[in-house]
Amino acid sequence: MKLMYSPTSPYVRKAMVLAIERGLDRKIEKVAMTASPITENKALDKVNPLAKVPALELDNGMTLFDSPVICEYLDSKHRGDKVFPASGARRWKALRQQAIGDGILDAALLARYEGFMRPENLRWPDWAAGQKRKFTQALDLLEKEVKDLSGGLTIGHITIACALGYLDFRFGDMGWRTGRPKLAAWYDKFARRKSMQATIPPT
Amino acid sequence: MKLMYSPTSPYVRKAMVLAIERGLDRKIEKVAMTASPITENKALDKVNPLAKVPALELDNGMTLFDSPVICEYLDSKHRGDKVFPASGARRWKALRQQAIGDGILDAALLARYEGFMRPENLRWPDWAAGQKRKFTQALDLLEKEVKDLSGGLTIGHITIACALGYLDFRFGDMGWRTGRPKLAAWYDKFARRKSMQATIPPT
Repeated sequence: MKLMYSPTSPYVRKAMVLAIERGLDRKIEKVAMTASPITENKALDKVNPLAKVPALELDNGMTLFDSPVICEYLDSKHRGDKVFPASGARRWKALRQQAIGDGILDAALLARYEGFMRPENLRWPDWAAGQKRKFTQALDLLEKEVKDLSGGLTIGHITIACALGYLDFRFGDMGWRTGRPKLAAWYDKFARRKSMQATIPPT
Repeated sequence: MKLMYSPTSPYVRKAMVLAIERGLDRKIEKVAMTASPITENKALDKVNPLAKVPALELDNGMTLFDSPVICEYLDSKHRGDKVFPASGARRWKALRQQAIGDGILDAALLARYEGFMRPENLRWPDWAAGQKRKFTQALDLLEKEVKDLSGGLTIGHITIACALGYLDFRFGDMGWRTGRPKLAAWYDKFARRKSMQATIPPT
């Protein structure tokens, strides 16, 4: 299978962390793709009309996106412990955590497009502030719920770790660890995993 | 359970269509909420730090979001045919279709915020064009793949129908049916379902 890939995309990182954790990375051919909300990339559009990475092309030609779908598909392709719990309270907890992590990322990327990509004279401070409020509130919730990040590895843990790694990568100045010591301690331990070390975005 | 609700949100509509299709709507208490990317709503933030609807508060106090998680949860709470196929090719097809529908909505909402909410002097035509390209390409793909919208009801069908309904509601001028006769025919039939009729957004 072929993964439409960018080394700086935190959503791609989710898929790669899962793949490395469960020994699937050798089965994945990475295809480098530039994804931008502004500039057309016809090669990427052919695989994903929404023009985003990751997108996964299966050997039978089927294409999958977005990252939650790709991650659940990858999780069906190994025989180890599943990172998507099959059912019940454990599943809802993991999917809710994935939604928190993806929600932090969605808001952080919109704030970044506003503050870096958009021409300076067209920026709207209220928009950037609204997105920042979303991911700040989500971080505060994670600090309160940090005990829910213990136990066997789930897609919730992976997504939240990729989200925090993205904040370090693109929002280093905001100091997300300040006032959130438990979340910081959890992340700093999680980030030592081989899968996280192997997927650190290039500076 | 309590659903943080807005009658104009297409993501809320997904959850309500599913609930009506499977007889769960009587178990859902709708709590009217105004969600905006700009204006704070503390009542909503308490349930969902990402400040979006839908959010679902369970009787045990757990909160779920976003719409794919809520819909899968609701689907676990009835004994009828599941709209999330349990596994295999049918599941990936349904989840991929849900991602296409949600992707159309994500792009359409960003285009709408750009064109209606943002102060006129701060609008960036390249951004609006990029988002419109995403959902236009996704519509073209659906026209090609319309035969995959047959068969038993899935979350893919529901999501795509809610996305097309949203385009009628907010982007009536774009004429999405033009050049896409098969998709238009599929939607116009689907939209006659009681669940769709009961959830038409108010004008």
